[in-house]
Amino acid sequence: MRPGFTGATIDRADRLRSDPEALAAAMGDWRARVLMLSGLDPVIEEGRLRWASIADAPPKADLVLLGLIDGKPHFVAIPDQPQGTTGRPPHIFGLLAQLPADEMALYGAARAMVEWHMRHRHCPVCGGATRPFKGGWGRRCESCGAEHFPRTDPVVIMLAEHDGDVLLGRGLGWPEGRYSALAGFVEPGESIEEAVARELLEESGVRVCDVRYVASQPWPFPSQLMIACTCRAGGRALDMDATELADLIWATRDEVRAALKGEPGRFIAPPPFAIAHTLLTHWAG
Amino acid sequence: MRPGFTGATIDRADRLRSDPEALAAAMGDWRARVLMLSGLDPVIEEGRLRWASIADAPPKADLVLLGLIDGKPHFVAIPDQPQGTTGRPPHIFGLLAQLPADEMALYGAARAMVEWHMRHRHCPVCGGATRPFKGGWGRRCESCGAEHFPRTDPVVIMLAEHDGDVLLGRGLGWPEGRYSALAGFVEPGESIEEAVARELLEESGVRVCDVRYVASQPWPFPSQLMIACTCRAGGRALDMDATELADLIWATRDEVRAALKGEPGRFIAPPPFAIAHTLLTHWAG
Repeated sequence: MRPGFTGATIDRADRLRSDPEALAAAMGDWRARVLMLSGLDPVIEEGRLRWASIADAPPKADLVLLGLIDGKPHFVAIPDQPQGTTGRPPHIFGLLAQLPADEMALYGAARAMVEWHMRHRHCPVCGGATRPFKGGWGRRCESCGAEHFPRTDPVVIMLAEHDGDVLLGRGLGWPEGRYSALAGFVEPGESIEEAVARELLEESGVRVCDVRYVASQPWPFPSQLMIACTCRAGGRALDMDATELADLIWATRDEVRAALKGEPGRFIAPPPFAIAHTLLTHWAG
Repeated sequence: MRPGFTGATIDRADRLRSDPEALAAAMGDWRARVLMLSGLDPVIEEGRLRWASIADAPPKADLVLLGLIDGKPHFVAIPDQPQGTTGRPPHIFGLLAQLPADEMALYGAARAMVEWHMRHRHCPVCGGATRPFKGGWGRRCESCGAEHFPRTDPVVIMLAEHDGDVLLGRGLGWPEGRYSALAGFVEPGESIEEAVARELLEESGVRVCDVRYVASQPWPFPSQLMIACTCRAGGRALDMDATELADLIWATRDEVRAALKGEPGRFIAPPPFAIAHTLLTHWAG
C-alpha cells in the first residue's frame, strides 16, 4: 500500500515559479482555481476538495502556486489568521478519509505551505518583515534581503526487531491501547541510520544495528518528512524514557497482524494514513 | 565505505539538555571542553580537532552542548560574528581531510548548529529576539514565547540508470570536467521517491521509476540531510534545465570506475566526502 499523503498527480510546474511573466499569466488566467479551506481544514464536497475561482480569492491575499492540473493553475491563499476549524490528528482523519489519495496528498502539500508562510512572516536573521516570492515557494526579507525557503523536518520512525518480535511504544497522552513505532527528529550532524540508533537508545535503551530503509511519507502537521526503517535489536532489556513514553512492549507478529486487521487484541494499530501503518504492514507481511 | 560526516562517536546526552541542573553542572565541570573555531573552520593540531578549556570560552558566549566524550562535556560557542576564515566546499575539504572520520562528523554537527543559531537570532513568527534553551538545542522567543528547533533540509541525490549507463550532471560554475549525481531539496508534500522523480524530470526531462534508497549523510554547508537513491530511467532523451545545469551525460560503468579511481577520462568524480561518491561507488560495484 502507498503511504498516506503521497500520490499527488499535480504538476508542480517549478519553472513557472521563477518566471515572473508566466506567474502573472497564471494568476490572471480565468481558469485558475484557489483551494477552499476552513481554518486549515479542507472543504470537501461529494468526496472531493472544493476550489473557488481565483476571482473569489481575497483581493490582497498572497497566493502559493501549487501547480497545474490539466494545464490549469491551482493556488492556495495564505490567510492572515485562519478562520474556522483547524484540525490536527486524529480529528482531521475523518475528513481526510473522504478524499481520494491524490487529493489528500495535494491538500497535505497546500496545508504545509500555508502553515510555513503563517509562521515565517519575519526574518529569523534580522527580525524584519518578509514577503513571498517565487510564486510562494520562498520568502524574502524586506530589511536584510535574506531569502528563506519552506521548511521540512526529517523524522525517523522505526521498528526494532528481536527474535521475531517488534518494539512498539505508547506516547504520553495517546488513546488507551494505541501503540506505534518509535520516532524522532533527525538532528544536525546525523545520517538516517545514526538517528534511528540514537532515538531507539534514548527512548528505549535498546541498541540496534542493520538499519534498513523501507518507505517515506510527507506529514503535514506541520511539515515533516517521515522516514520509515527497520533494524535489529541487540537485546530485549528496556530502559524507557518516561518523559516521552507511557509504555514499551515487544509485540509478536501475530499480535501485529491482528491489530492491523482491527481485531481486538493486545493493542490498537496506528491509522492507515500514518506511515507506521505502512511499516507494520511491511514487517508483518 | 561509510559516507562522509557520519560516524561521530560522541554521546549526545539528550537527557541533559532538558535537565537545567545537569546542564549547569556540565557547564561548571572543570573538565569541560569548548571546540576551537577559526570563523566556522576547524582548528586542527596534529590531525585532531583542537579544544579549549571552558574557562577560556568568551565569558558571555552562548554554548551548545555537543555531548559527552569519555564522560566529559564538550561544547561549541555561538560567536556573535565569526572571526577568521569560513570555508565552503571545495576549499574546506583540504582541512577536513586531515581529520579522522569521527572528528569530521563531530565538526560537521558543531558547524551546522553554530550556523543555525547565527541565522535564528529572531523569531520568524513575530520578529522578536530569541534566546537559546535546552542546552543550545532550541531557541525561544522572548516576545511571543514560540520555540524553534535546529533546521535540517532533506535533499535527494540520485542516479538514474538506463541500459547500463548512468545520468550525471555538471552544475553551473563547477570546475571543468566535474560531474556528479543530480540533487534537489525535498519539498513539502513529497515523499523521497516523489522528490527523486520530480527533480530528475525538472532538471533532465527523464522520467524514472523503481526508486531505491542507498545511503544518507548529513552535510553541514549549512545543514542538509543528503538522501542517496538509484532509479531506472524510461528513456535517454534529455531536456536539460539550463538555469541549473551546464551539461548532462550518460556515463558508462567503466567511465565511472575510471573516474572513481582518479584516472584521466571523460569526467572527474565528486570528492570522497560527498555522498555522490558513495553512491557512484555503490552503483559501479
